[in-house]
Amino acid sequence: MTISSKQITMAVTLLMSSITAHAMQALPGTPPVPADNPLSAAKIELGKQLFFDPRLSVNGTISCNSCHNVMAGGTDNRNVSIGAKGHKGSRSAPTVWNAAFLSAQFWDGRAATLEDQAKGPILANVEMGMPDKKTVVNRIKTIPGYVQSFKAVFGGKKPVTFDNIIKAIATYERTLITINSPFDRYMRGDTSAMSDAAIQGMKKVQATGCTGCHSGVNFAGPELPVGTGFYQKFPVYPGSKYDRKYKLTADKGRYKVTKNKADMNMWRVPTWRNISLTAPYFHNGSVKDLGEAVRVMARTQLNKTLSKQDVDDIVAFLNSLTGEFPAQTLPRLPDYKNGTLVLP
Amino acid sequence: MTISSKQITMAVTLLMSSITAHAMQALPGTPPVPADNPLSAAKIELGKQLFFDPRLSVNGTISCNSCHNVMAGGTDNRNVSIGAKGHKGSRSAPTVWNAAFLSAQFWDGRAATLEDQAKGPILANVEMGMPDKKTVVNRIKTIPGYVQSFKAVFGGKKPVTFDNIIKAIATYERTLITINSPFDRYMRGDTSAMSDAAIQGMKKVQATGCTGCHSGVNFAGPELPVGTGFYQKFPVYPGSKYDRKYKLTADKGRYKVTKNKADMNMWRVPTWRNISLTAPYFHNGSVKDLGEAVRVMARTQLNKTLSKQDVDDIVAFLNSLTGEFPAQTLPRLPDYKNGTLVLP
Repeated sequence: MTISSKQITMAVTLLMSSITAHAMQALPGTPPVPADNPLSAAKIELGKQLFFDPRLSVNGTISCNSCHNVMAGGTDNRNVSIGAKGHKGSRSAPTVWNAAFLSAQFWDGRAATLEDQAKGPILANVEMGMPDKKTVVNRIKTIPGYVQSFKAVFGGKKPVTFDNIIKAIATYERTLITINSPFDRYMRGDTSAMSDAAIQGMKKVQATGCTGCHSGVNFAGPELPVGTGFYQKFPVYPGSKYDRKYKLTADKGRYKVTKNKADMNMWRVPTWRNISLTAPYFHNGSVKDLGEAVRVMARTQLNKTLSKQDVDDIVAFLNSLTGEFPAQTLPRLPDYKNGTLVLP
Repeated sequence: MTISSKQITMAVTLLMSSITAHAMQALPGTPPVPADNPLSAAKIELGKQLFFDPRLSVNGTISCNSCHNVMAGGTDNRNVSIGAKGHKGSRSAPTVWNAAFLSAQFWDGRAATLEDQAKGPILANVEMGMPDKKTVVNRIKTIPGYVQSFKAVFGGKKPVTFDNIIKAIATYERTLITINSPFDRYMRGDTSAMSDAAIQGMKKVQATGCTGCHSGVNFAGPELPVGTGFYQKFPVYPGSKYDRKYKLTADKGRYKVTKNKADMNMWRVPTWRNISLTAPYFHNGSVKDLGEAVRVMARTQLNKTLSKQDVDDIVAFLNSLTGEFPAQTLPRLPDYKNGTLVLP
C-alpha cells in the first residue's frame, strides 16, 4: 500500500478538523430549521413563487431574485444593487446560497433569521419599495392562486399575512444549499477532487490565519445560536493603502445597529462558499477581483503581504468551494386575471 | 343520441373554420422555423440561458425575461417597461408567448422575425442599454461556458457572434407555445372545455366583427409570409371619448417605420392568446382592465357600443384563450469566475 502526499494532507486536515472547534467542515445537505417555521414541499414552492415574483416590488420591476440571482451565484454581481425606483443600495447584495447556515443575516447582522431578513428589502425604499406591510399583504391577497396556496400551507382564517409571506420566502431560501463542492468531496475522502494548487491554498489559508474567522461549514465563523452572528473588524490593521483605495472605513458597519463604539467597522464574516461567483467583494463591492480581495484581506486583517504564488493558491482553494447548484423548475407565478397590479 | 346546443355550436364553428380562411383555429404545438436557424435541444437551452441572463444588459440588472416574464404571461404587466438605466420605454412590452406565430414583430412590425426582434432591446439605450454589438459579443466571449456552448451549437472558428446570440434567443422563444387552452380543447371536440359565457362570447366576437382582424391560430391575423405583418388602423373610427382618455393617437405607429401616410396610427394586430394575463392593454398600456379594452376596441374599431353582458361574455371567451404554460427548468447561467463583468 502506498500513501500519496494528497492522502497524508487529507488525513492531517481531517485530524485537525476533529480537534479544532472552528475547523473546516463539509457542508451538510440539510439546513437548520426554526421550530416555528417547519419545512414542507408546498411551503417551499410557495416561497419560490414569491421569491421570483416582481409583484412584491412597488412597480413590478424586481423580485428577490433580481439581486439574489439563484440562476447564478445568488447575487447580482454588482457593487451595489439598483432598486425598483432606480436607487442604488449602500451595500453589496450578499449571496442567498447557503445563507441558511448563518447565525445572523445582512452585512451588519441586524436580522437574526432568514425570516427577519426577508422583511427588509420588500419594504426598503431603495430596494423593492413597497410602502408598508399592509400594501404587500393586500396585493398578495388579490391574487387568487396565492390565497389558495397560503390557505393550504398555513391554514387559519387569514392565511395571507406579512409574517406568512416572509416565512414562505425564508423556507425556500433555506433549501438553497450547494453541496458537493470539490472541497466537500475532498473532505469526504476523494483525494482527487481538489487540485494540488487548491490543496496548497487550503494549507495557506490555515497557516496565514484566514480560517481564524472563515471557519465552520459555511466558512463564515463557528456555529452559534441563531441571532448571535460572528463579527470581525475590517480593517483590523488600519492604515494600509487599501483603506483609502477601497473606502473600507466609510461605512461604520455594525455600529449603525448597536451604536456601540466597539462595533465600529465590525462586519458579519461573510461565507467563502461559491465566492468565485459572488464578485465584486466586501460590504461595498469595491473589489472586483478575487485575487485582489485575498491580498486586501491578508494585509488589513492579518497584517501579512502574500506572494503571488500564495494568492494564486488561495484563489485555487476558494474556487474549490463552488458547490453543486440543485436543479430547479422555473416557478409559475399565480395569475392575476384581466388587469394588472403594478401600474407605475 | 341527443345533440346538445354546445355540440351544435361547435359543429357550426368547425364548419365555419373550414370555409373561412381567417377563422378561429386551435394553436399548433410546433412553431414555424426558418431554414437558416433550425431548432435543436442544445440551441434552445443556450437561448434560454441568454434570455434569462442579466449580463446582456449594460449594468447587469435586467434580462429579456425582466420585461417578457415567461413565469407569467410573457410581459411585465406594466404600461411601459423600465430599462436597465431607469428609462421608461415608449410602448408596452408585448408577450413573448406564441410570438413564433406572428409574421412580424414589435407593435409596429418593424422586425420580420424573432431574430430581428431580439436585436432591438439589447442595444436600445432605454432597454438593456448595451452600447454596440461588439460589446455584447465581447462580454459573452468572456464567459467560458457560453463559448463552449456556442461552439457546440454553431461550430466554426468564431462561434460567438451577435447573429448567433440572436439566433439562440429566437430559438428559445420559438418554443414558448401555450397549447391546450379551453378554446383549443373545445375546437378539438371537448364541448365541456368552455363555459356557456365563453361560448356566447365566441359567437359575439364573430358577430361584432372582432375576428375580422383577430383571426388565425394566434388571433393576430391570417397566416402570412414572414415579414408581412397584419396591420390595422387604431382607431378606425376616431372621435370617441377614448381617443383622448387613452391617448390613442399620440403614437403614430407604423408610420414611424415607413414614413408612409397610409400607415399613420397603423399597428400590428396583437394576439388574443393569454390576453387575460397581459394587462395593461394597447401599444401604450393605457387600459388596465380587459373589459374596458373590449369596450374601447368595439367603439374605436367597429363603431359599436357593447352591452355589459356582451363585454362580460367576450371577456369570458378571451379568458378561454389562456393556454398551458409548459413546465421548464430554471436555467443555470454560465459562470464568470473570480470577477464581475457588470460593475456600474
